[in-house]
Amino acid sequence: MDETVLLGHGSGGTMMKRIIDEVFFEAYADKELLEGNDAARLPQEPGRVAFSTDSFVVTPHFFPGGDIGRLAVCGTVNDVATSGAIPKYLSCGFILEEGFPMEDLKRICQTMAEVAREAGVHIVTGDTKVVNRGHGDGVFINTSGVGFIPEGIDLSGAYCKPGDKILVTGTLGDHGITIMACREDLSFNADVATDAAPLNHLIQEVIAAAPDTRCFRDPTRGGLASTLNELADQSGVDFVVEEDAIPVKDAVRGACEMLGYDVYQVANEGKMVCVVPADQAEAALAAMKSNVYGKDAAIIGEVLVSPEGRDPRVSLKTGFGTMRIMDMLVGEQLPRIC
Amino acid sequence: MDETVLLGHGSGGTMMKRIIDEVFFEAYADKELLEGNDAARLPQEPGRVAFSTDSFVVTPHFFPGGDIGRLAVCGTVNDVATSGAIPKYLSCGFILEEGFPMEDLKRICQTMAEVAREAGVHIVTGDTKVVNRGHGDGVFINTSGVGFIPEGIDLSGAYCKPGDKILVTGTLGDHGITIMACREDLSFNADVATDAAPLNHLIQEVIAAAPDTRCFRDPTRGGLASTLNELADQSGVDFVVEEDAIPVKDAVRGACEMLGYDVYQVANEGKMVCVVPADQAEAALAAMKSNVYGKDAAIIGEVLVSPEGRDPRVSLKTGFGTMRIMDMLVGEQLPRIC
Repeated sequence: MDETVLLGHGSGGTMMKRIIDEVFFEAYADKELLEGNDAARLPQEPGRVAFSTDSFVVTPHFFPGGDIGRLAVCGTVNDVATSGAIPKYLSCGFILEEGFPMEDLKRICQTMAEVAREAGVHIVTGDTKVVNRGHGDGVFINTSGVGFIPEGIDLSGAYCKPGDKILVTGTLGDHGITIMACREDLSFNADVATDAAPLNHLIQEVIAAAPDTRCFRDPTRGGLASTLNELADQSGVDFVVEEDAIPVKDAVRGACEMLGYDVYQVANEGKMVCVVPADQAEAALAAMKSNVYGKDAAIIGEVLVSPEGRDPRVSLKTGFGTMRIMDMLVGEQLPRIC
Repeated sequence: MDETVLLGHGSGGTMMKRIIDEVFFEAYADKELLEGNDAARLPQEPGRVAFSTDSFVVTPHFFPGGDIGRLAVCGTVNDVATSGAIPKYLSCGFILEEGFPMEDLKRICQTMAEVAREAGVHIVTGDTKVVNRGHGDGVFINTSGVGFIPEGIDLSGAYCKPGDKILVTGTLGDHGITIMACREDLSFNADVATDAAPLNHLIQEVIAAAPDTRCFRDPTRGGLASTLNELADQSGVDFVVEEDAIPVKDAVRGACEMLGYDVYQVANEGKMVCVVPADQAEAALAAMKSNVYGKDAAIIGEVLVSPEGRDPRVSLKTGFGTMRIMDMLVGEQLPRIC
């Protein structure tokens, strides 16, 4: 096998066949993928189809707790799962830069295969393109996901109602601060690592425990603040969250203070925001806490009526008891975080 | 609206919301997409699911007869359609380079919307990432597609049988030579333009006319030669095709001769190779010719038994009556053709 990626690996000819056989099939050889046709043919399933896509351009490609491959599988699995669907199939499109080390590519594919197994999804179709040196950045990955929504499940960011409780499944800001620390070569006393994780099983467990769950949304780019603003906007309601209730690791909070980042705008890759009716909030919280990825889950606030005549609003009740507006991220805080 | 793409447009915050609202929703505002959730929720459909993905990195982005957006929609529609599926939904992931002109992005989205309408598919979910100047190449697009395979339809590249006829839906090499001519600033006496086209309707018409059709495959990267070798390999049969029967435009043949390209290894973006039982070949051909994208269709050869003890082989009967092996493309002839 060649030591680096060459233009010919994206040619459609025998070199491409070799990279497919020796790298991609070697890592994640699913039956449908191996059939060798242009489209994977998948069994008929009951339920509505959920479909989502995400491209990953994070830099660096490897960081504490994961790599671009872990993000690529978790990101799309989680996006599909937020609809209440059981994610089943992933596609995987690589855009490689000429000269990218083949060993790195193999390592990334290995990670993808491991996370896919954990999530219970199959990588069934793929594509490889190679761009000339200097016209890409090592590796970009697109994953798209297909899942099926079980009968009776209907979640949407538009369903939040006044009185509902707002939960998060764990500590915020870990992923963004990890990437930033890698880039700036900062080190922490405490271990900070990406939180990237497949949350599809956790979501199904919460729905089983709290059947009237309104919605899940993963606070990735733009962080908690942007996600809450999106949901408030979609549902036409106000949100209020309490600073003291929002779980943030000390090391992450310290890094944010030192560097001037708003932790609520920092990206997460293994967390969910979840809105449930008040009488099911404790059940939802217990379900989260019993999952390995939800042990730091918390109820962080509630949904309020949005007064007529102004836009829906997200407010933060600070530790000092004052209120401030929690705004959506405007520009860019940490580019290429995922 | 900003005149160029900025890093903040990939942030997950308000700038990203603006590019989504003003560029993407403006061009292709489908109901499911507009719902604003992370995954599109699509109605249940009968039939097996077909799923495919493709990234597009072609350079230049605009060329005679189309642009990267036209390729991105046609490529995935065609890949899904080769399975016999009716393509229904597309995802669209953009990787934009900081500084890319917003006008160009709008033009590309407009093209995508037009071709999607023609193909009858809906763009229902998307993603936007922005990479720093010098770490991308203007615009890369990933599209993934979902379709449904009608009851009773079962196509695969593994189904070719000795005696079957091999057809192509039109002239070969147009796309590759168009791109090459753009890059090298060559001009032809005759008009040569990309053939990129959505072929899903044509495929369904052929299946209706020739119900025992074995398979379709689009001869994109690697051209006719690579596609025929893939199919021969998958089915364990030999193929023989006749040079005089293979439709090639004079201008394309001339350019290939002048530049030393093998026209059978040059990429096409709006053509299909199709294998059908001999007694349905004329019906399949008539169906192709009655479609606007199949008027130059031809029967180009047939499937033979592959002798035991050697690998399946594709042979070309030349205009002089001699036979030569038609090899798969090995390295890279024209990088970044799609």
